[in-house]
Amino acid sequence: MENKITTLFKIKYPVIQGGMVWCSGWRLVSAVSNAGGLGLLGAGSMYPDVLREHIQKTKRATDKPFGVNIPLLYPDMDELIKIIVDEDVKIVFTSAGNPKTWTKFLKDKGIVVAHVVSSSKFARKCEDAGVDAVVAEGFEAGGHNGREETTTFTLIPQVRQATSLPLIAAGGIATGKSTLAAMILGADGVQIGTRFAISAESSASDEFKNLCCSLNEGDTMLCLKKISPTRMIKNNFYSRIEEAEARGANADELKEILGRARAKKGIFEGDMNEGELEIGQIASHLKKIISAREIIDDIVSEFNQAAGNMAAIRL
Amino acid sequence: MENKITTLFKIKYPVIQGGMVWCSGWRLVSAVSNAGGLGLLGAGSMYPDVLREHIQKTKRATDKPFGVNIPLLYPDMDELIKIIVDEDVKIVFTSAGNPKTWTKFLKDKGIVVAHVVSSSKFARKCEDAGVDAVVAEGFEAGGHNGREETTTFTLIPQVRQATSLPLIAAGGIATGKSTLAAMILGADGVQIGTRFAISAESSASDEFKNLCCSLNEGDTMLCLKKISPTRMIKNNFYSRIEEAEARGANADELKEILGRARAKKGIFEGDMNEGELEIGQIASHLKKIISAREIIDDIVSEFNQAAGNMAAIRL
Repeated sequence: MENKITTLFKIKYPVIQGGMVWCSGWRLVSAVSNAGGLGLLGAGSMYPDVLREHIQKTKRATDKPFGVNIPLLYPDMDELIKIIVDEDVKIVFTSAGNPKTWTKFLKDKGIVVAHVVSSSKFARKCEDAGVDAVVAEGFEAGGHNGREETTTFTLIPQVRQATSLPLIAAGGIATGKSTLAAMILGADGVQIGTRFAISAESSASDEFKNLCCSLNEGDTMLCLKKISPTRMIKNNFYSRIEEAEARGANADELKEILGRARAKKGIFEGDMNEGELEIGQIASHLKKIISAREIIDDIVSEFNQAAGNMAAIRL
Repeated sequence: MENKITTLFKIKYPVIQGGMVWCSGWRLVSAVSNAGGLGLLGAGSMYPDVLREHIQKTKRATDKPFGVNIPLLYPDMDELIKIIVDEDVKIVFTSAGNPKTWTKFLKDKGIVVAHVVSSSKFARKCEDAGVDAVVAEGFEAGGHNGREETTTFTLIPQVRQATSLPLIAAGGIATGKSTLAAMILGADGVQIGTRFAISAESSASDEFKNLCCSLNEGDTMLCLKKISPTRMIKNNFYSRIEEAEARGANADELKEILGRARAKKGIFEGDMNEGELEIGQIASHLKKIISAREIIDDIVSEFNQAAGNMAAIRL
């Protein structure tokens, strides 16, 4: 297949691995890119020097395209951007901020820019800002999330209608069938987070990956809406947030409970009780830790079989 | 197409019109059934005598199969069930309760029974209870909703895996493309509420239909989680609920604000400020009031075109 997404990023399959904090280091990124997808380093959990090291290691591990995801709330953006330009990174996905802030600068350096949104309104802002592609992410996605709570099923057709930009669907997508479903709804490609977070090459702790593989439906929940809506696994830490929210705690009280570095504590260091365990709803559908290449191969073969079955189906 | 759903209900298209309070009367139900879908009367907003009248009028307006949706919390179930049996209704969809309570009784009378769930766990309970088909409804759906907040995109593949029952997807589905996407995710058919609520034959007020056609993304929200999670349009009434929830109001306080008969006041009587305006997220994608037949024809032609396009696509 050649389409807007494979052409834009010069990749074989329109499958992008989300640049997730504490999961998306050089091992995962190079494995995904080597398997024909697009790997993205998750700069959100890296000090600038750590990002430089991961970029250099990724370059040594693959000659295929890869990129970096940057949350625009990053405290030291200037230094991060300088490293990305110095290291000649060709693709940047930005999220959690205004696409106008950095898009022109990055594009002037020859970098392809995608931006993550959770609404058609922000997709149109991306188009105005000159972004090359938009990632539309639904309510079911793990981690930080939109305030409108629009799900992938309802978001994708609306963003498709709102913009002619290449459109990448995210949230709840983990398989070949869900990739095909997203493309029927209007997407040109998909961004998959949760399934790659649980892959063999993810830098997440074994404790985190194993817990994700044992989840049932309803075991993640969107909370912290008075600070920044975040989907996480229900654990001891979540219970304290839930209890505080039920009694009407304000943002300051919630920040006090949240404290600092809880995502690292949970995802990376393996504290399943007190960590902030960001993962998507679709985790409850995933039961095995396999390699990034096996994931991509599985998506491709399931997609092709499901698309082939469509030939005979008419209402 | 012949599949598990068309065969079970003896209908032309696997498209079911949700039995919605204050929308799904005999006009809508007979129009949907005459167009080849399955119309469902919404008994939840009908006194027993009113239901009997609507069943009789539906029978006069169509010779095609139709059914009745009953919320199992209905205060006078015995009388309702007696009318359904007396009037020789062949199909019942139950919701909001335990499928064990009435399934055997209804099936012994020769009635086909479907039950609405929001999780795989309850889908398995349906199978144990002898239900003939399961409706799996995602977080994006309007009105009463599941506590797990599982979206259509993540729910359908999991329910498909959990049960071999004929599976009807609901929540966020309004078009041919979304019907096809739901079937790729594992559904045998779809239940469409929101789009039919806004149809010409819906008994909802013009004020409600016009407001629904003017919504933007994010204009509905799931609230009342301490009573029974319900998706509704943000209006004056919603704002009071939202403010109370933010300060930690308990279930009794919320019930006090809710009062009685607000869905009727809003949807049926047209009070857009103080009514409880139940509708799904996908309303913001719908801009026109058209007939049930035009809706079904549009779904069928869009589905067939999309399935044809997909048949040639390979990764």
